[in-house]
Amino acid sequence: MPIDPNAATEITAFRWVPPMARGFVKDLRVRWALEEIGQSYRVRRIGAAFEDKPAGYLNEQPFGQVPVYKEEGLTLFESGAILIHVAGKDERLMPRDVVGRARAITWVLAALNSVEPMVQMRIALQFSAQDRDWQADALDAVRPFAETRLSQLSQALGDREWLEDRFTIGDLLMIDVLRSVREDSLLAPHPNLVAYVGRGTARPAFGRAMAAQLADFQEDQDSPLP
Amino acid sequence: MPIDPNAATEITAFRWVPPMARGFVKDLRVRWALEEIGQSYRVRRIGAAFEDKPAGYLNEQPFGQVPVYKEEGLTLFESGAILIHVAGKDERLMPRDVVGRARAITWVLAALNSVEPMVQMRIALQFSAQDRDWQADALDAVRPFAETRLSQLSQALGDREWLEDRFTIGDLLMIDVLRSVREDSLLAPHPNLVAYVGRGTARPAFGRAMAAQLADFQEDQDSPLP
Repeated sequence: MPIDPNAATEITAFRWVPPMARGFVKDLRVRWALEEIGQSYRVRRIGAAFEDKPAGYLNEQPFGQVPVYKEEGLTLFESGAILIHVAGKDERLMPRDVVGRARAITWVLAALNSVEPMVQMRIALQFSAQDRDWQADALDAVRPFAETRLSQLSQALGDREWLEDRFTIGDLLMIDVLRSVREDSLLAPHPNLVAYVGRGTARPAFGRAMAAQLADFQEDQDSPLP
Repeated sequence: MPIDPNAATEITAFRWVPPMARGFVKDLRVRWALEEIGQSYRVRRIGAAFEDKPAGYLNEQPFGQVPVYKEEGLTLFESGAILIHVAGKDERLMPRDVVGRARAITWVLAALNSVEPMVQMRIALQFSAQDRDWQADALDAVRPFAETRLSQLSQALGDREWLEDRFTIGDLLMIDVLRSVREDSLLAPHPNLVAYVGRGTARPAFGRAMAAQLADFQEDQDSPLP
């Protein structure tokens, strides 16, 4: 198992998040990649999500999020950047040739700059406009942005297994983004995307990463922070 | 001048966009990077923004956006991915060592996954909720997302010239994202960010890229598409 308290690689994770966020915190992406290649890591658990972070942590992660990734001589943040770095070491996550590498990175950016923001917009309004009488109208107004992107992505994937001719970090991130679309009415119209998410989450490395993230929260389940 | 009809590198650009979008279309990011290193490129102008794209174009760019980047044997989309590829060839855009490279890419992702989506959310509501009586309330509700990120970024930059100890593609993209915050009330509270944008846009390569994008639209100014 890649989790090893003496590992040279460290990632950060939240000590507590609300139950609905468990299994969806972004350290999962990095745990998944490390599980795919069997690179062991240790976990440094920081405070609860939404809690103020110590100033020292903001020097490592200016937005107060997780994960921060550390290895000998290098501190990184942003799960996409961490995955590009980790994948650069192991062909199982990204081809070594210039073309294969650039195409995998193209899908990383497609997931994180073209698809995720359109989904996030609805989640942001679900939280920030809670109980406002215009919330449903606002959610409707931004819905086409998400629908358009998912439909374009469905066309791009077609009946292929992965976005390129093999699994890469582009798929890993795209699948993790699609998993976060927790509205059946958005994803269900695209059976190929539903099956694609199923293929990704059926990978043993995904299962181990998920179990590890959930186990870390479990310890605190009975004593959440105030 | 890097624009050369016989160049081996090609980018796509829109033939027409509304006046308020001119100077802000994402091919600017790629033109800027190519200008920084003097890599010549040719421009393939496709239809107007918002117009349906030919199916062939969607095979190159599944979201129908610009730019697509082509060079011998390689077709890429997503400006962030194109910049990581281009910067991999030239130390002036990204250090060659593993640590310097990973840190530059971390800021690319910070710009495109942590800062831009928070700004984009307001732009999306400005368009999609035009003339709705709840628009102002919705804009207020998502404003703290943008404010928080800009304030965190301002702290991270501090009084340094660039995000790391030298200019990289991380700065190029962050500055282009900050430029798109066209609301004084969001950016003005952070004089160091305003000065940072000023330093970036004062670079001769930025000026040439901007002139080239605007010139391409100018030709059509008197005959916009229907």
